[in-house]
Amino acid sequence: MTEIELIDMLCAGLPGNSAVVVGPGDDCAVLELGLPDRFILFKTDAVVEGVHFTPDAPPEKVGHKAIGRCLSDVAAMAGTPIAALVTVGLPKQFEPERVRAIYTGMSALARQHNVAIVGGETTLSPDRIVISVALVGWVHKNRCVQRSGARPGDAIFVTGELGGSLAGKHLEFEPRLAEARWLTEHFDVHAMIDLSDGLASDLRHVLKASRVGAELLAEAIPISRAARERARMAAAEPLPPVDIAGQKSPLLAALTDGEDFELLFTVASADAVRLFDSWKVQFPGLRLSCIGKITAAEGVTIRDKHGTRPLTAHGYVHFQ
Amino acid sequence: MTEIELIDMLCAGLPGNSAVVVGPGDDCAVLELGLPDRFILFKTDAVVEGVHFTPDAPPEKVGHKAIGRCLSDVAAMAGTPIAALVTVGLPKQFEPERVRAIYTGMSALARQHNVAIVGGETTLSPDRIVISVALVGWVHKNRCVQRSGARPGDAIFVTGELGGSLAGKHLEFEPRLAEARWLTEHFDVHAMIDLSDGLASDLRHVLKASRVGAELLAEAIPISRAARERARMAAAEPLPPVDIAGQKSPLLAALTDGEDFELLFTVASADAVRLFDSWKVQFPGLRLSCIGKITAAEGVTIRDKHGTRPLTAHGYVHFQ
Repeated sequence: MTEIELIDMLCAGLPGNSAVVVGPGDDCAVLELGLPDRFILFKTDAVVEGVHFTPDAPPEKVGHKAIGRCLSDVAAMAGTPIAALVTVGLPKQFEPERVRAIYTGMSALARQHNVAIVGGETTLSPDRIVISVALVGWVHKNRCVQRSGARPGDAIFVTGELGGSLAGKHLEFEPRLAEARWLTEHFDVHAMIDLSDGLASDLRHVLKASRVGAELLAEAIPISRAARERARMAAAEPLPPVDIAGQKSPLLAALTDGEDFELLFTVASADAVRLFDSWKVQFPGLRLSCIGKITAAEGVTIRDKHGTRPLTAHGYVHFQ
Repeated sequence: MTEIELIDMLCAGLPGNSAVVVGPGDDCAVLELGLPDRFILFKTDAVVEGVHFTPDAPPEKVGHKAIGRCLSDVAAMAGTPIAALVTVGLPKQFEPERVRAIYTGMSALARQHNVAIVGGETTLSPDRIVISVALVGWVHKNRCVQRSGARPGDAIFVTGELGGSLAGKHLEFEPRLAEARWLTEHFDVHAMIDLSDGLASDLRHVLKASRVGAELLAEAIPISRAARERARMAAAEPLPPVDIAGQKSPLLAALTDGEDFELLFTVASADAVRLFDSWKVQFPGLRLSCIGKITAAEGVTIRDKHGTRPLTAHGYVHFQ
C-alpha cells in the first residue's frame, strides 16, 4: 500500500462540521471560527530520527526543520503563523543537552516569525526521537490560496533553486512566509503549494486538485548548486538513474528531490511580467523562475531542445 | 532526569507573543485571536504503542483513547472542541485494517462531540505505532477555568470513580465535556484539571499553580470496582506496596493510578450543597464526590479514622 492509497483510505468517512472551510488535502486545514475577515489555519507535521534527520544531525538544525516544515505549509496558504505546540518523543536514555539544543533551534525560528510556543508534551518513544509540531495561524479570507485554483494558461513559478537538499538545505531552509504574503497582497495567486516531496510530485497535487495539466520547460527549472555538485561527484561513478531521455541527473534532482521548501504557485500569464519586475525589487536575494504553464489537458509534459515528452519522474513516496 | 525536570528545562525561554493568554502548564493553551467573547483552545497529545496501549489492544479503542485524551483536556478548561489533526506514525509493514479501525474509533468519538477531523499526516515510525492528535476548540472568555484558581476553603470534587483504569477504562473513558460546560455555566468553578497522571499527582498540579494545599478525606475518595477487584485478586499473593500506613491498596490505586480521565475541580464551600443537588438531577448516572478541601497551608494531607497524615503517594512519572 502506498502512502497515497493509505491516506485515501484514512480520509474516507472522516467527520466534518460547519467550521471546516478546507479539510484534508491542502497544505493546511482552514477553519471558520467567526472572525469577520480571517480564517484560522491549522497544521501538524512530524519529523522522525532516522527518517527525516540522521542521529548525527546538529540538534539546533533538527529543531529548525521540525517547526520550519509547518511554517512552510502556512506560507503555502499565504498565512501568518501564531502559535505552536511541540510533542517530543524521547528514548528512556536521552541526552538533555541535545534535546535542549533542538528546542533552541526551534525557538529561534519561531521567534523570527513571532510564533509563540505554547506548550506540548514529552512522551516516551523507546527507539528514536520523534518531534511533532502543531501550528495555528490565520489568513485574510480573500487571500487564502489553495491548491485547487490553477487555470489553463496560468504561468507556473517557483522560488529559489531546487534539488540536492539532503546536502544541507533540508535542515536550514527558510520558510517563505513574507514572500507568500507579499505575493497575495499584490497579485491574484491562483494556486500555491510548498515543495516538500519534490517538484514533480507536488506539482501533481496542484494539477489534481485543479483538474488541469502542465507543460514545463526543462531549461527554466532552477537547479541548485548542490544538485549540480552531486551530479559532478557521481560522474566518476556509474551514472545515477536518469528518467528523462537525454537529460542529465541535475535536472532530475531538481524535479524529484524532496524537501526544498520553496513555493510553487500559478498566476494568470498576463501578470507574469509585472510579477517578475516587482519580485526583483522586493526580494533581490531570492531567485524566481517561471518554469512552464498550466494546460487544459491533464498530465505533465516537459519540453527541451529535443522536443516535448511526458514527465514520468515521481517524487519521493513513503511506504513504497 | 525526571519528566518534570525535563519539561521545566524545555519551557525555559520559549518564545511568546501577544496572542497567548495561557501558555505551557495548563490542560490546554489559550489564545486570544480577536473573537469578542471567546478564547481559542489548543492542545496536542500522543499515544505510543507499548507505552499507552499494547499491541493487542482493540484498534477502535486505541483510536478512541488517542482523541479522547485531547477531548478530556478541552473538558478540563470547560471548552468545546472544534477540529482535530491526526498524525499517525506507522512501521513499514503495517496492517491496513488495523489502521483503518483506529480511525474508525477516533472518528466515532469525534462525531459524537461534533469534532471535525481535518487532516494530519502519515509518517514512517519504524518500530511501533505512534498517534499524535492536535485539537482546536473554544471557550467562553468568562468560563475558561485554569488550574490556578483554587482558594483556601474550596471544596474539592471529582467525577466518577478512580483507580484500576488499566483493566479497561483507559481505552473506553468518556471525556467529560458536557459535564464541564454545565458546571461552569451554573457554578463559579475556581480550578479544574482532568485526571490523567493520577489524583495524587494531578491534584498537586492544581495546588502548585494555585499556591495552596489540600486536605483529603480517605473515605470520600471514590474507588472504582476495578481497583477493588485488582486488590482482591492480589490478596492471594504478597501484598502490593502500600504507601499510606494502615490503608489498603484499593485506596492507593484510586489515589495514584493514572488515566481515569475524570474531572477534579474546586468551588467555594458555600456552593457545595447546591452543586451536589443539581448534579444529581443533571447527571444521575455519574457519581460526584467531594473528596476534601483546599487549605492555605501547602502540601497534601489525608485524614482517616486513625488521624491525619501527609500524603506521599505519587502518580506515575515518565522517565524515572
